[in-house]
Amino acid sequence: MTSEQNDLIVVADAMADAARAAILPHFRSSTLTADNKLSDGFDPVTVADRAAEQAMRAVLAEHRPQDGIFGEEFGKSEGCSGLTWVLDPIDGTRAFISGTPTWGVLIALSDENGPIYGVIDQPYIGERFRGGFGVAEADGPQGMKPLKTRGTATLAEAVIFTTFPEVGTEAERAGFERVASQTKLTRYGMDCYAYALLAAGQIDLVIEAGLNAYDIQAPIAVIEAAGGVVTNWQGDPAHGGGQVLAAANKGLHAQALALLQEG
Amino acid sequence: MTSEQNDLIVVADAMADAARAAILPHFRSSTLTADNKLSDGFDPVTVADRAAEQAMRAVLAEHRPQDGIFGEEFGKSEGCSGLTWVLDPIDGTRAFISGTPTWGVLIALSDENGPIYGVIDQPYIGERFRGGFGVAEADGPQGMKPLKTRGTATLAEAVIFTTFPEVGTEAERAGFERVASQTKLTRYGMDCYAYALLAAGQIDLVIEAGLNAYDIQAPIAVIEAAGGVVTNWQGDPAHGGGQVLAAANKGLHAQALALLQEG
Repeated sequence: MTSEQNDLIVVADAMADAARAAILPHFRSSTLTADNKLSDGFDPVTVADRAAEQAMRAVLAEHRPQDGIFGEEFGKSEGCSGLTWVLDPIDGTRAFISGTPTWGVLIALSDENGPIYGVIDQPYIGERFRGGFGVAEADGPQGMKPLKTRGTATLAEAVIFTTFPEVGTEAERAGFERVASQTKLTRYGMDCYAYALLAAGQIDLVIEAGLNAYDIQAPIAVIEAAGGVVTNWQGDPAHGGGQVLAAANKGLHAQALALLQEG
Repeated sequence: MTSEQNDLIVVADAMADAARAAILPHFRSSTLTADNKLSDGFDPVTVADRAAEQAMRAVLAEHRPQDGIFGEEFGKSEGCSGLTWVLDPIDGTRAFISGTPTWGVLIALSDENGPIYGVIDQPYIGERFRGGFGVAEADGPQGMKPLKTRGTATLAEAVIFTTFPEVGTEAERAGFERVASQTKLTRYGMDCYAYALLAAGQIDLVIEAGLNAYDIQAPIAVIEAAGGVVTNWQGDPAHGGGQVLAAANKGLHAQALALLQEG
């Protein structure tokens, strides 16, 4: 790892720490009115979302003013380093408003070819997944652990996740179900946490649709660092968003991709 | 609270602590062979399940030998106190094998009329929900918080959970969907953690089917202590298992029950 890569990892951790501090006071907040709006008319997830992105941007302004930023809440700002931070301060807002610990802070660092480093952070559990620059690790309730996807050979042995049973369009749902019907177990509702579980070798496939670039760039970096494969449903790079197929290994990816393309 | 009730709460916490210690070494274990079996032929969730129930039974043998026990793994043993501990050492085994932090240890204390005290414990997050004997509280990453269900007035404002989209039989799925289609948001995949979220005032309804007594007795105690209502789909006591409707308040319960009974 170069000195600059080490610096970038430190900056990403500082951003994730800042986002945690900004978000957690709003998670499961008991200060809500009956319509889930705060007195300023915003819902708590919107307030937390904005505060977290601002906190992350403040870290970048201090330490990496030369980099570009593409954030879910405040859009794009140009840099001159060739590097861009791609930020989703709260991925999984429906999870957040339901109190489930399956939302996350997504931080990716990308060059012109896509993400080169990523963080998936779950502030409530206190769990952080890092991937890129030769790093693939998770820090959480069980301490620091290496991330490594598993070698499941066939769909019949695989565990698959997507967040919503409807997946996306009718055709997208049908595509998902062609794959899911061949697997051992289908589960729902994990939001970005499913990508972290894939990187951690706990599950085998995540298939989603309708994603934005900032939803998937951090998961791509973490999963690829752990040995997995992430593409769109055509087998091309997925860092622009849209339909995503994430797999624990090349063999499973090929089997799932073939079924997605039958549609 | 009487002195004996206080003792029972202390015993329940000791049981939950013992279960945590027995289970966590097996959660996200990296010692698995390719078929998810350990060298003794058992899968890690089965090993953890049995070890946790044995650990809880050991606590009872020491402190409450006069009580009955009904455990998921080792069945029923009679007591002479009129009280029975109803135990599910790992509720949500499919969650457990997928690495999601949505399974839980369920501990209920029941008399002849049903549960009078309950604990829902999530060991990985380190979160414990307690209800009964005048207690309704959660201890976790945000410290100790009171549990109180929320006052959502209509299904149109409600958030509903069930674990699997198929729910149960076709008729049960249709019943669930009659209610879910009227709500603001439907989410899946939370296992027993959904009942804890309901008690914590984060969501409004949980509807499930095909439950065992040990799946639902602890949630009943926790939710009722927090102000919620739990019955079966006929509006009768649910502590025997089967179809369950858990609601944040009486009004929502009545609205959901009417739709379930249209089938």
